[in-house]
Amino acid sequence: MGIKNWKWFAVLVAVIFAGGLFFLGKPAMKEVSAVQAPGLPADSMQVIQKRGLSPDDVFGALSTYVPTGKYDEYYMFASGGHGGQVLVIGLPSMRLLRVIAVFEPESWQGYGFGVKENPLVNKTETIPGQKPKDLSWADTHHPGLSETDGKYDGQFLFIGDKANGRLAVIDLRDFETKQIVDNPVVNNDHGAAFVTPNTEYVVESTQFSVPLGGKYAPISDYQKEYRGLATFWKFDRAKGRIDGEKSFALELPPYWQDLADAGKGPSDGFVFINSFNTEMATGGIEEGNPPFEAGVSQRDMDYLHVINWKKAEEVVQQGKFKVVNGMKVIPLDVSAAEGLLYFIPEPKSPHGVDITPSGKHIVIGGKLDPHVTIYAIDLIQQAIEKKDYEGTDPYGIPILRFDAVKKAQVELGLGPLHTQFDNHGYAYTSLFLESAVARWTLGDDKFQAPEKPWTLVSKIPVSYNVGHIAVAQGDTVEPDGNYLVALNKWSVDRFPNIGPLLPQNLQLIDIAQTGDHMKLLYDMPIGMAEPHYAQIVRADKIKAWEVYPEVGWNAETQSKSNTAATESKVVRSGNNVEIFMTALRSHFDPEHIKVKQGDHVTLHITNMERTRDATHGFNISNYNIAASMEPGETVDIDFIADKPGVFPYYCLEFCSALHLEMMGYLMVEPAE
Amino acid sequence: MGIKNWKWFAVLVAVIFAGGLFFLGKPAMKEVSAVQAPGLPADSMQVIQKRGLSPDDVFGALSTYVPTGKYDEYYMFASGGHGGQVLVIGLPSMRLLRVIAVFEPESWQGYGFGVKENPLVNKTETIPGQKPKDLSWADTHHPGLSETDGKYDGQFLFIGDKANGRLAVIDLRDFETKQIVDNPVVNNDHGAAFVTPNTEYVVESTQFSVPLGGKYAPISDYQKEYRGLATFWKFDRAKGRIDGEKSFALELPPYWQDLADAGKGPSDGFVFINSFNTEMATGGIEEGNPPFEAGVSQRDMDYLHVINWKKAEEVVQQGKFKVVNGMKVIPLDVSAAEGLLYFIPEPKSPHGVDITPSGKHIVIGGKLDPHVTIYAIDLIQQAIEKKDYEGTDPYGIPILRFDAVKKAQVELGLGPLHTQFDNHGYAYTSLFLESAVARWTLGDDKFQAPEKPWTLVSKIPVSYNVGHIAVAQGDTVEPDGNYLVALNKWSVDRFPNIGPLLPQNLQLIDIAQTGDHMKLLYDMPIGMAEPHYAQIVRADKIKAWEVYPEVGWNAETQSKSNTAATESKVVRSGNNVEIFMTALRSHFDPEHIKVKQGDHVTLHITNMERTRDATHGFNISNYNIAASMEPGETVDIDFIADKPGVFPYYCLEFCSALHLEMMGYLMVEPAE
Repeated sequence: MGIKNWKWFAVLVAVIFAGGLFFLGKPAMKEVSAVQAPGLPADSMQVIQKRGLSPDDVFGALSTYVPTGKYDEYYMFASGGHGGQVLVIGLPSMRLLRVIAVFEPESWQGYGFGVKENPLVNKTETIPGQKPKDLSWADTHHPGLSETDGKYDGQFLFIGDKANGRLAVIDLRDFETKQIVDNPVVNNDHGAAFVTPNTEYVVESTQFSVPLGGKYAPISDYQKEYRGLATFWKFDRAKGRIDGEKSFALELPPYWQDLADAGKGPSDGFVFINSFNTEMATGGIEEGNPPFEAGVSQRDMDYLHVINWKKAEEVVQQGKFKVVNGMKVIPLDVSAAEGLLYFIPEPKSPHGVDITPSGKHIVIGGKLDPHVTIYAIDLIQQAIEKKDYEGTDPYGIPILRFDAVKKAQVELGLGPLHTQFDNHGYAYTSLFLESAVARWTLGDDKFQAPEKPWTLVSKIPVSYNVGHIAVAQGDTVEPDGNYLVALNKWSVDRFPNIGPLLPQNLQLIDIAQTGDHMKLLYDMPIGMAEPHYAQIVRADKIKAWEVYPEVGWNAETQSKSNTAATESKVVRSGNNVEIFMTALRSHFDPEHIKVKQGDHVTLHITNMERTRDATHGFNISNYNIAASMEPGETVDIDFIADKPGVFPYYCLEFCSALHLEMMGYLMVEPAE
Repeated sequence: MGIKNWKWFAVLVAVIFAGGLFFLGKPAMKEVSAVQAPGLPADSMQVIQKRGLSPDDVFGALSTYVPTGKYDEYYMFASGGHGGQVLVIGLPSMRLLRVIAVFEPESWQGYGFGVKENPLVNKTETIPGQKPKDLSWADTHHPGLSETDGKYDGQFLFIGDKANGRLAVIDLRDFETKQIVDNPVVNNDHGAAFVTPNTEYVVESTQFSVPLGGKYAPISDYQKEYRGLATFWKFDRAKGRIDGEKSFALELPPYWQDLADAGKGPSDGFVFINSFNTEMATGGIEEGNPPFEAGVSQRDMDYLHVINWKKAEEVVQQGKFKVVNGMKVIPLDVSAAEGLLYFIPEPKSPHGVDITPSGKHIVIGGKLDPHVTIYAIDLIQQAIEKKDYEGTDPYGIPILRFDAVKKAQVELGLGPLHTQFDNHGYAYTSLFLESAVARWTLGDDKFQAPEKPWTLVSKIPVSYNVGHIAVAQGDTVEPDGNYLVALNKWSVDRFPNIGPLLPQNLQLIDIAQTGDHMKLLYDMPIGMAEPHYAQIVRADKIKAWEVYPEVGWNAETQSKSNTAATESKVVRSGNNVEIFMTALRSHFDPEHIKVKQGDHVTLHITNMERTRDATHGFNISNYNIAASMEPGETVDIDFIADKPGVFPYYCLEFCSALHLEMMGYLMVEPAE
């Protein structure tokens, strides 16, 4: 830490003397170097001068600095965008603590490179008979932390793959991906992953309607053959896995469903999904049709989907579903007849739907409308009960009367996208077109802001083109406030030039105080895809393991491995060579593996370490195998020794002073 | 480091007022908040209190903070370790500006997912007939920036793959990987990439000796059949490519060669490579032999390899080489006879060899010896001339007499690994076992420190287990000093718990002042593999493009694409469907692609944008295709439409308010 040479001249500038406060004026920054701040060392003032920092910069620097060895107050889990991963970021330092490999292979984590204990290699079927897709990337959009009673419980994280219609399950004991779930009915999603208040289900809804079950149908049959889908994946918390057989889906009209949020408290039992392209436009600019961007933006109102998932559960138990590729799907006519699905008019091409902390209100940001629109769950329930409909859509789904369910509208500005909440009674909405975040007041909710309800209070500009925003615990029943992160899509001129492909820019904003006080603290470039959405959880809620619970741990089953061995052994049987290997600073045992070309080689490698951070890696040159064994972990690898020659294997982690010496040779004798 | 109980009593409360000095005692921090510092807002003082910051923390926070819209002074290019990529980090902010996809596919950059204009897809042969290995990861170790006259010129970056014996070339106009070069003679390296002073060659040396050319030989034939190799890859700067046919290699004894550095100034023409395992130990713990870690650490001296590469060039021109898999390899006996290779005893199992700014001195850190050892090029040249040998090694290579070439030794501490230089005449050496960085003085070099030459001046502890270090331009003829980054291998307790796999920790240290003044400024966790080594270049040396020079740019050839089209077109010929597509906010043209199952589909997509940051992405659901088209770029993709059904394609970059609407459908009619 090198504090030893600290020069500590300090100094005061003002003096309380004879009961009086004397101010020596407000000299400009460059003039103050001789006159030093109380408690601030002289060289801090020199740094302020040298770097040309403004008072706001000083505030930002001090607010975000987390000294060596101190910990961040929050974890932010951000999707890794079309990099296919998940980012773990500390707040307020905005440090990237970890990239969790999810849908894309990642050799540091030994993920997808031969180790059998991960879903990219083992390709387990979630629904029997439905083989997982053979894909190695994803467009990750919306992470969803598991919840208990509407609060983050720090146990699991779910993340959706928009491009291919998949979901992943991450276990927060070791921050590793345990399951990839393929939707067998549709090949894309967008509204994923959103959890119900006790993580009974993880909700995944499509954006782009397609013929269900992978069928082909020409675009001319769009209204007849194409459909949206809301899938309710049943989560088995004890197993830490989604249970495909207990999951179900609702067929939806071929609108483009968008984000979802689950009701909580008074709205528990409902899931809300908004939509656009209720025009059912089908594009075709090359044939002289309006392009999608025009076709889907014609109507002033789209439909908020209100789904009664508890009732849907019952309907599934009653057998009122069809089966598509193994998935139970509730047809549209059943949803209409059973009262599972209602529509509410919503202006206009909305992106986000967000439930307030009380669970009483549902907030919609229609990106082509300057307002947010707020609905109340009691009004919705009354309208459903009274059948207070504007009519039905072409598929027979009742449309609740807008004025009957609308609680308020607040004019915010251009391009409202997504709303989060704090503990002062404020809501925050991103304004894409204005590149700003608006703070406004809720009414009749869990907290009450000092200002008048349903009023715009202030805005802060961001750089640039903000999509989602995240407030600490801001989509739970216990929002923390304090920090807001704006996930900006463009950075343009914010950072040094790194060529034509630019980083995204996450901006950290101080929202701890009320009124018009919001301060930009920090810009964090993310030069690795677009972190689309994020959730921020208090650090004390995460209870991760420091090392695996015991030596010989299988990180897939999260239990003792049945292939672990603490002493090395080689078992040969015909063309099969099975090797039980140990890794301990600083050698592997065995150091020579002798096989014949064509042999089937199975490795079980156990990291014998119990020391935190004593990870060993393992790889075989030219065999595209890379493993990471954290302290206590056992991994299983198998391959055909099809390439003759001599191939070093070595430890991939700089584990000790003799790390470079931790190696061995795979010797593959050529076949006759 | 637990400074949390830092007592923040200021201080000197002195004031010159009316010519008098008044002492008011020692007010605690909480008492001074009302007394505002000149130029510092009151809330800054509140933040200091609230966060419990110490004076060193304040200094660190202010020193590293780069306000929104201001730029970093330096770029740091760090290897991405066994993640296989390259990291671009801004200094002093320690922000991650970009992850450059190199050896591992990365869907954000459209790298390795179907786009033909990148080396992971096009797999071009560097040496005719030598097919690139089919690998999708690497263990990247040492980045090397291109140089002109021994100075970074900001044009290219090279990086080695230790695991598989490969090199990559990155063009710093667009920060993209342009070439992957497979070594056809060996399957691993370590001392790569190091450039000669005008980037004539990129040097790659093996760590693990193997039978050359991919042959098989049992380990019992180690001394006879296994060999090390130093490869000199010829760089064609105009083409921005390594030219395999003009490259050559030197066969080396089966020691474990390690890092390299090229001479400059008076030592230009030489390349220095150190080595360990001159014991030629072969391990085999499972058979009762000493494990590698013991076997390779027995001798007190290993051999610094001195290679006269200019003379080697001539020897190659004279045809004195053998050809191994297309590579010209100079045999050991030719090197001995022609005076291409000399050994110098070096203590003990060294890792780094580093040439001082003057080019006069060669510094070795022997990791099992407490000293750094300094050799002088004039002494080496005299010893070569006088044949001042200690003898020859078993392969006939002359060993220069240690005392004849040694200039100095400086005792630093435990585990010296790697040395860098500044503009004050200091050298900095990482001490792995001590977890510290030592500052010591050079003598008779380009700069002269105030202290006595060849003396340890001070140390600063780091957390923990430092491997390489990087000083701004610290391995060139024009070191800048100012900042040092310690690349620490273990972080243990430095960051919030994220499970058993921990981030590395890069620590930024202020080295701007002389003497014992070194200050820790910042901890940067890297939760994505081990950034093994880094180089830091002044930001003004990088001249990257903001957008591609013109619409229709081929980023592989860095010239106008011959498949670019600014109007959409579909050309059908039998089973071949060729589509010229445009992308412009916010639609693709065409929006419908209709093919038959089994058709061969070729896409040429041109991003028509000229606005900075107006990148569009492209993907096809379930087809494992992901592209990124930066402004002006044209990409080529082809695939067999083997899966029937309807597959959305959409823009992967949040490009506008109507980004979600930028999509189309690939409709694959099933085969009869």
